[in-house]
Order: sequence, then structure tokens, then C-alpha cells
Amino acid sequence: MAGRLHDFTPQRYMLTYGPNEPALRVRAGDSVRVKTLDAGGTDEQGRRVSPSMLQSRADTDLLRSNPLVGPFHVEGAQPGDALAVRIVRIGLNRATAYSTSEAHFGMFSGEAPGRKMLVSPPLQKERFDWRLDLRRKTGTLRLKRSAQRTITVPLDPFIGSIGVAPRYGRVETALTPGEYGGNMDCIETRQGTTIFLPVFVRGGLLAFGDIHAAQGDGEICGTALETSAEVTLKFDVLKGQTLDWPRMEDREWIMTVGSARPLTDALRIAFREMLNWLTRERRFDSREAIQLLSQAGRVRVGNVCDPNYSVVYKLRKSLLTR
Amino acid sequence: MAGRLHDFTPQRYMLTYGPNEPALRVRAGDSVRVKTLDAGGTDEQGRRVSPSMLQSRADTDLLRSNPLVGPFHVEGAQPGDALAVRIVRIGLNRATAYSTSEAHFGMFSGEAPGRKMLVSPPLQKERFDWRLDLRRKTGTLRLKRSAQRTITVPLDPFIGSIGVAPRYGRVETALTPGEYGGNMDCIETRQGTTIFLPVFVRGGLLAFGDIHAAQGDGEICGTALETSAEVTLKFDVLKGQTLDWPRMEDREWIMTVGSARPLTDALRIAFREMLNWLTRERRFDSREAIQLLSQAGRVRVGNVCDPNYSVVYKLRKSLLTR
Amino acid sequence: MAGRLHDFTPQRYMLTYGPNEPALRVRAGDSVRVKTLDAGGTDEQGRRVSPSMLQSRADTDLLRSNPLVGPFHVEGAQPGDALAVRIVRIGLNRATAYSTSEAHFGMFSGEAPGRKMLVSPPLQKERFDWRLDLRRKTGTLRLKRSAQRTITVPLDPFIGSIGVAPRYGRVETALTPGEYGGNMDCIETRQGTTIFLPVFVRGGLLAFGDIHAAQGDGEICGTALETSAEVTLKFDVLKGQTLDWPRMEDREWIMTVGSARPLTDALRIAFREMLNWLTRERRFDSREAIQLLSQAGRVRVGNVCDPNYSVVYKLRKSLLTR
Amino acid sequence: MAGRLHDFTPQRYMLTYGPNEPALRVRAGDSVRVKTLDAGGTDEQGRRVSPSMLQSRADTDLLRSNPLVGPFHVEGAQPGDALAVRIVRIGLNRATAYSTSEAHFGMFSGEAPGRKMLVSPPLQKERFDWRLDLRRKTGTLRLKRSAQRTITVPLDPFIGSIGVAPRYGRVETALTPGEYGGNMDCIETRQGTTIFLPVFVRGGLLAFGDIHAAQGDGEICGTALETSAEVTLKFDVLKGQTLDWPRMEDREWIMTVGSARPLTDALRIAFREMLNWLTRERRFDSREAIQLLSQAGRVRVGNVCDPNYSVVYKLRKSLLTR
Repeated sequence: MAGRLHDFTPQRYMLTYGPNEPALRVRAGDSVRVKTLDAGGTDEQGRRVSPSMLQSRADTDLLRSNPLVGPFHVEGAQPGDALAVRIVRIGLNRATAYSTSEAHFGMFSGEAPGRKMLVSPPLQKERFDWRLDLRRKTGTLRLKRSAQRTITVPLDPFIGSIGVAPRYGRVETALTPGEYGGNMDCIETRQGTTIFLPVFVRGGLLAFGDIHAAQGDGEICGTALETSAEVTLKFDVLKGQTLDWPRMEDREWIMTVGSARPLTDALRIAFREMLNWLTRERRFDSREAIQLLSQAGRVRVGNVCDPNYSVVYKLRKSLLTR
Repeated sequence: MAGRLHDFTPQRYMLTYGPNEPALRVRAGDSVRVKTLDAGGTDEQGRRVSPSMLQSRADTDLLRSNPLVGPFHVEGAQPGDALAVRIVRIGLNRATAYSTSEAHFGMFSGEAPGRKMLVSPPLQKERFDWRLDLRRKTGTLRLKRSAQRTITVPLDPFIGSIGVAPRYGRVETALTPGEYGGNMDCIETRQGTTIFLPVFVRGGLLAFGDIHAAQGDGEICGTALETSAEVTLKFDVLKGQTLDWPRMEDREWIMTVGSARPLTDALRIAFREMLNWLTRERRFDSREAIQLLSQAGRVRVGNVCDPNYSVVYKLRKSLLTR
Repeated sequence: MAGRLHDFTPQRYMLTYGPNEPALRVRAGDSVRVKTLDAGGTDEQGRRVSPSMLQSRADTDLLRSNPLVGPFHVEGAQPGDALAVRIVRIGLNRATAYSTSEAHFGMFSGEAPGRKMLVSPPLQKERFDWRLDLRRKTGTLRLKRSAQRTITVPLDPFIGSIGVAPRYGRVETALTPGEYGGNMDCIETRQGTTIFLPVFVRGGLLAFGDIHAAQGDGEICGTALETSAEVTLKFDVLKGQTLDWPRMEDREWIMTVGSARPLTDALRIAFREMLNWLTRERRFDSREAIQLLSQAGRVRVGNVCDPNYSVVYKLRKSLLTR
Repeated sequence: MAGRLHDFTPQRYMLTYGPNEPALRVRAGDSVRVKTLDAGGTDEQGRRVSPSMLQSRADTDLLRSNPLVGPFHVEGAQPGDALAVRIVRIGLNRATAYSTSEAHFGMFSGEAPGRKMLVSPPLQKERFDWRLDLRRKTGTLRLKRSAQRTITVPLDPFIGSIGVAPRYGRVETALTPGEYGGNMDCIETRQGTTIFLPVFVRGGLLAFGDIHAAQGDGEICGTALETSAEVTLKFDVLKGQTLDWPRMEDREWIMTVGSARPLTDALRIAFREMLNWLTRERRFDSREAIQLLSQAGRVRVGNVCDPNYSVVYKLRKSLLTR
């Protein structure tokens, strides 16, 4: 029995993942179609969201980055279950995106050893306006005062920030990804992927947004091609499926995500969770699973600019059969 | 004018990168065809190399892992130049490979934060014997006493360890990769790739070996599918091309490699060197280069088990044109 | 006008820092005298706390380590203020303490580079029962089946875990220290020290416990000399004093604490906060402050075993005068 | 039988640790008295060393920082032995020292997580001229254009860079500390300390210099109070005493030093080496040694600005008796 498709128009945009008032209640099997704002709070018409539509809290000054849609309460989702969220469609809906550079941020602030210690000059704070060609699936940047004429990158849109209410309290949407998902900035949360998230509070309370039209591995300058989109998600509940960290699946890969600092820990978490997946659910012998992953696993560096870095560990599904 | 092809049979295997006596002198444009030993010192017939054929030093007890062929002295290569080494062919030449597990090594020794701290039980020390099907390009492992029957991974052979004599002294071939290349364990040093290495001593003194028939990103259990091969390399010298770190190029990508600890530093070095490549040699404006990389660059985690970790930073060549 | 001294007997022990029901309301200037449990929940008589006296939550299974006393609501403390908590007395009140070892934990799980990679064999899980001589101020451990007879360490008791309700939600007391204080395991939170904490929720809601009779820097085996004590704290509110991270002061030093991973980040936070202290409140020129700290600052490694590591940055107060 | 005291006047200053021509041959038991240059190559009269007196190499452009005295060949020291070098005296011999700041270096380049990501504005490149009062043992800095009048720090002079020829080749004196010692920048290499170093090449070939009149933990701005001194060292050889990393001893402490990145690895190495010391030479049971260190060990952060960071692990000698 097919679920219902909810055409949802947000009245409010969330600045935290947490036990916030549900924006919409859906059932397992239902889908939601909704338009997101970009990371700076601008919609597909280029209109900035009114501050009155942003989540506010009497007790603290919420960071205003990454306003999200949701939270969506999924009936029947209980702590100890997993939420399965299929990204049915990401429809970019405007011809522009922006990125920025900031001084002393991410990869550009920090030295590294070498014969002469590697230190980077600071970047200028700057905003870059990209043109999106949605038919050719390219983004183009033309800088003034430059020897170059344009640079062009292929589009590969994905959801930068998606997660449920964390185990305790709230986390600002612009900040720290973790066991609950969040601002992971991994390009694998794209159309066609299903993400599995642990449920910590009744209903799960999924929120998402921060569409990136394209992004390099690591989101090294701290921003991607920030834009808006119309997104359709389909919700399901896996009863009794306890997860420690987010997992993902698409046609070709199974994937896990770890978010931590330093980068090695993020990789270690993602690897370990994949090992759990193979040995617990897929009934691999642990030595076989370790060999299969060690000889054929793939790693994606999601972000190295958020308070926790995110790493995706991937294995081709074709290697699971025998 | 085509160079000469040297069919070379090693009389000795090197256990260090360094100012060792050249095994062969070649000219720019020449190629060398040579058979390598596996990381444990076994050839394509399954014969273990005689200890008398291994490099020895009166003053120290060299680690016996990763015996390499070379060093090859390239006429005319001087400090300040770069060596361009094209990997013309990697011909696997036996139907077996081995991998191992060790207790308390790499990804398996170390905790990571999480709600319950993530700690891994130690692995058993064990050797795994893989069958290689060179026609189907697969490796298969069948474990006794296991619920599984077999695991199979696709072959994608590459050179695990390749480098020149470092700036100062010697480095054991089983150990620390660095500015001179070395035991980087990056799957991109495969057939069809050209690797560019800084020249620190006259002739460059390239050595290589440690063929991996396949390897997952990170070489997480500490070993890959260790095997032997017949390899053909073609040597060129780029006069006056000073490099800080290794670079690579294949049909599709330009690439840089950074080797350091922690993992973030390895990524930072590789990213920075790619930025140098675009701005110095390709005459990109620095802001354009940063945007192009940040929005379209790709990252490969080479190894996270050697004394320095290695990360490859990659950009598609199609994005360089305009 | 002197504040009131509250002799407080807990009815319940907290397993989270957070917006929990206050156990006691006090005024600025008041003091509280209270007996704490050890990290395992045992009191000065050696009696294990009844599970019914531990905080519980319907929605999650709280870790049962580090049961704390509190929370104490300080009248008038508002978000944006700082809480000043003077540790008036730590009176050890029993002749025993325990420590433990665990396999694959902290410093003992993880490799480090070296000529031969440094890997540690796992520890056995074990409990060590120490005798405390409160008059001589020593702790003594006598192991059976050992060539040694005893080992003896000087006592220097301190509060292992002390903090306020964090900005959002709850944090388990056994886990991650942060901007709100928490399980920092820094030996400077001893008798005579005043700790300054940011107030995130009305009343601050300070909780504390986890007394350590002694601890080496880094708490390398993951536990200290875990014991109970009678503790007296005096509370004050610094109106409008906004802090980013905890600060401390005793007769000799001013101190800041950073908690993060990796260890470098914890040090960077603590250093930066000290720089803020000197330049904002003590009106140092920034270059002078940097020179003073760089040439005379001291660093204490608090813990390297919790999900966030803690580092104390210290400057002698005698160097602040001129 | 007392050894001989050599009054040595350098004809050349070394820019590498390595198998360089000995400047002087001494016997076990002998002492050497020699004047060092500061890190910038200036002597006690304020004269800059002539470039012709600096070590040079045809094949590479040596970094000109940290010119050292030596190397001293100690008769009878063989690979596998340890060199014991007692720092008999460090006599500061001028009334000036300098420190510097640099943009984007060390603690000042790099972000750290926090609610708002912590990023530091870059420092200006600047030189600071300190006055040393050798009688009162203070250093004083007076900045122009500053609200402050002066800052004053206590002097505690030590040798910033001291080491033997490494296992292989050379390491520049301004750079990477390691198993051989080197540019560790740990304040414990002060008058009264004996440092024990592994011998990798015949004679050991000890070199040293880079006197710091004072330094904060971590050498956070990248330089200390750089000055010159007259130093007396006494040499001994411990036959058959194989060390993995440097050890130290003074009247109060035994100490080990680890140098690596990241900081956790440096601490892990130093801790592990101390554990080796207690269990191998002092015959502690391993569980006792771990408990003694975990409950009473102390940590000094040496430097966090060199290509390898250095950490000293310390234990009071009074705790070794029973």
C-alpha cells in the first residue's frame, strides 16, 4: 500500500536539530515534497527569509546559518528504531548558487610539516556568485580582475545537512554533525540514496536543508555551491533496528558515516560501523569482513571544516554476493 | 627519438631509499622492464629471495620488508629537477597474493569517541592466502572454519612503494613515505600513471616494488594483496622543474600526494601542492584555483597504517580547460 | 555580609549535566557542604548507592558512571553571567580508593610512529584497591603475585567532574567535557581553587563529584584514585561576565581549560582563552600577552582518555603585575 | 679517575645532525666547555657568524637557523650503546635575547572547534628584543606604542637543540626532533640534567646549541628567549644500553621524551618509553608501573611548533624507592 505524498510549505525554519515542535506528522511509507532555503536563508526566488520565520529561543542567540525544513515526526518511530529516509528527488530550482571564502578557516588556517613548514597565507573574505546551468548540469564562475575567464564544475546536488533529534537536547544546524547525522556535508546524500538514522526521540524528528549543487571532497574552503531546491523524501521506520551511526545505501554502494575530530577518528568510526554492518546484519565472519573491506573498501572525505569532520566508508554491493 | 628498453634482472634488492650504488644507469627516454618481489621477498615462482641478495649495512639491522628493485640512475637528473616516471605496464605474474592481520595495528588499535567509547578488540595475527584470477581480474579468499564460502574483490594492481633517494640519508623501504615518495600505498600509482618526483641527488636513484594486486582505501588492516609483477617504467627528466611533493597524472586526472601525520596534515599538504600546481604552472588566479578545487576536487586516502599517512588530492583534467 | 552554609544531604544523584530539577537553591555568597560518591557510586562507608537514587530517564539508558551531587541553582545567575565556584574544602573521608585498567583504552590502544611502529599489548581488565593514609597523605597499592612489594603516591585530591548545565540539552556525567566544564579530570580543581563557568541556563545548575585522591597527568590508564569526600563549595555570580570556556584561579596561578579532540585543539582553545583573559580583562596589548604567555606560560595535560581531552593553560599571577 | 676538560673554540657551526666530520674527539669521562651562538647565529658580543663558518653542502641549500657546536666524537661509543651527556653548566653570557612572531605559524594558525569556530587572526611578523638581568634572573621586554610598560619573565636557561647523528643520514638542526634528540625545545635540558641518547653511528657525534634563556610550555609563538651561552657538558658512554628514545634524569626526576605528530603520539611515545624504563631497568611489574605512572606521572609539553612536537614524561625519583 503506497503512502501519501505531502506537499508541504514551511511556516518556520529550524536552526536546531532537537525536540522541537513537529512541523508535520507523517506515517511510515509517506513522502514529503518541500522547498528548501539555501545556507544563507534565501529561497528559489532570491528572497531572504524573514527573521520572524526562523526558530528562536529566549535563552540563547541561535546561529542563523543553515535554516532547515522540518522537523518531520514519523508515526511509530521510537528510540531503538531506525528511520529510513529515501531521497527521492533533489530538484534544483534556481540558476544561482554562492560560495564564500573566509580568512583563517579550515584547510587554509593551519600549518603542516615539510622541509619548510607549510603555512598558508590567509584568504580574503569574499562571496562568489555562481551561475547554474540546470540543463547541462554545470556551475560556472566568472571572476572580475582575473587572467582566467571562467571556471566550470559539474553539478551533483546533494543535501548538506540532514538528521534527527540527537540523543540529548539540541545542536545548531550550522554546526557539529554526529551520531544523529546533521551537517555532514557528504556528497553521497544525493538523489537515489536512502539514509538510515538512529531514532533517539519519539517520531525521530527529521530536519534537513542546506542543498549543495556541487562540492569538492572536504568542502575545503568551508562552503559549497549553496543553493535551494525542491526535495522529495520518503520515510520508513525500521522497528528494532538499533544503529550507532548513520548508514546509507544507493544502487551501487552501502555506506556508513563517522563524524568526529581528528579525521582519523571519523574514519575509524565509519570503518567500524561498516564492520558491524557486515558481521551483524550480513553475517560475515569478522576476519572475512575485515579482509573484504581492507582490500576493496572506499573512503570519501565529507567535510574537514565543521566542528566534527565527516568521513564516508563505502563498499560496492556487488561484492556482498557470493 | 625513442629511448632504449632495458631488460633488467636484479642482482640485489634494496631495503632503503637513499644514495645507494645504482643498479642500472639509464637515459631520459629509456624504459626498464623488471620483475619485482612481493613485500615479503618472494618472487613469481614462489621462491623466497636469498638473504645474500638483500641490501645490508654493517651499522644497522635493516627491516626486511618491501625489498625493492633499483636504484635506477637517470643520466642528467640533478637536484632541482623532477623525475617523470611513466608506469607503462604492471603485469601480474602469479596466481597468488597474501595479506595479513596483526594485533594492535592501524585502524584496529585505537579508540574513537562516541556515546560508548569505540574500542576494537585486537585482531589475531594471521596470514591470508588469496587466489588471483588474472583473466577475470579478481582475487578470491576462502577461509576455513567460516560460515562464508569465499570473498572476491576486483584486481586493480599498483606499485605500493616508489620513490627517489631522499634529501638526506636513507629511509627504509618498509617505512615512512615523504617528499621523496616511498611507501605511499596509493592505488593511483597504477599502469598508465606518470609520477613526478623531486630529484634530491644526482641521478635521482629511483627504486620501487611492493606490488599490490588490490587494496582498499587506507590499507586498513596494514597489508594489501601482496604479490609480484613484471613492471615496465619509462624515465624522463624535467629540467629545472622543482617539486615540493610528488605529483601524478593519468588520462583523466592530475594528482598530488602528501604524506604526514596526522591525516589532516597529509590532506593539507596534498591540497596545497595542487594549489601550487594550478597557480604556478597552470597560471590560475589563486581565488579561482581555490574555488575550482573546493567545488570539484577529489580526495583519496592512500594509507592510514604507515608511520606517515598518505593522501592523494585529485582534479579532473577536463576541468582545466576553458 | 557572609552567606549561609547549607549542609546538604542528597536524595538523588545525577547522571547528566543539564536542565534537571534543582536539588537545592542557594544565593550568591552561600556555601554548600555535601558528601560525594566515588565514580562507581560508593559512599564513604563503602555502601553502593541504591539504583533508585540515581537519575533515570524514560527515553534512554543512562551510563551509570560518575553519579554527581546537585544540581545547585544559584539565584540570579542568568545566561551571559559567570558562576564563580570556590572549592573551600575537599575532605577525603575514607581510607580506600580504587583504580582500574581496561583493555584497548586510552594511551594503551593506539600505535605511534617510530622505527618499529609502537604498538601496545592490551591491558587486562583489572581493579586495583588502594589504601589511603589521610594523615601522611599517601596512597599505597600492594599487588599480589608481584616482585614489587608496594607502590606509594602522594595524595593531591581534586574534583574530577564539575560543571553547569550545557548550552543545549544534557551531557552524561561520565562523558564529554566541554565549554560547560564537566568531566575534565584536571588536578587543578582542588581545594583553594575557584572555577569560573559560563551560565547557559537560569541558575547555572552546577553539579559535581568524582573525587580523585591522586592522578597522574593525562589519567593515562583511564581512572584515577577514585574515592569519596566531604566537599564544601562557595557560590558567587559574576553578572555580565560572559565566558567562552572555564577559567580557574588559585593563590598562585590563573588558568583556563580547553576540552576537545585532538589534543592540539584542546591546547589551542585553552591558550586562546588565556589570551582573551589577558587582553580583554587585564588590558594587555595583544603582542605583550602573546610574548608573556609564550615565554612563561605552563601547560597541564588533564585527561587524554575522555571523549574530549582536557588541557589547562596556566600563568603565574606574579607575572601579571608590573 | 677524573676526565679531561676541553676548552673548545668552534671553527665551524653545524646546520645538520649527521655523520659530519668530528669537531673534537673526547673520551668517556671528559668534559667540554664551549660558547654557543643563538638560533640566529649571533654570539655573546652580538656579532653575526660569518657564512663561511657555517656548514655547507654542495647538493642542497641548508636552512641557516640553529647553528650548533660539535659534533663531538666520544671514543668507544658504538651503535647499540647510549651516550650520557651531563649538562654541567649553562652560563648565559650576554644581556640580550630575542624572540619573534610570525604570521600563520604554530598555535596561531589553525582553528579549533567551539560554538563559534575558534580562528585566530594572524600575527604580524615582528622581532622582540629582551633585556636579560643575569643577576636577578629575569628577562624584560618593553614594547613601544603599548599601554603596558614592561613584561618580565623569570629566566630558566636550557639547551633548545641537542642530539646525536640520527640512524640514517642528516637532519637539519632547525627542524624535526626524533629518536636521536634534536630540536626538542624542552625546558628540562637545563643545567643539572643528564640526557641519555641512543648511539646510531660510531662516536655518537653529539651536537648542540640554540640556548633559550626562558620559554613557555609549547614554545607557542615559535621562538623562545633566543640567546648565547657558555656551556659545559660531560660525556659518558653506557655500553650495551640500547635506547629507543631520549631519556633524562636530574636530581628530582627521571624523564623520557617523545617527538612526533600529532601531539597524542608524542605523549604516547614518551609514556611508553617510561614504562619500558620502569619494567626493563627498574624491574617493576608492568601493572605496578602502569599504576604508578597513571597516578603520579607528570607531563611537560615541550614544543608544538616544530615539524615533530615534543612531550616529556616525568616521574619523581622519590616514588621509585620502597
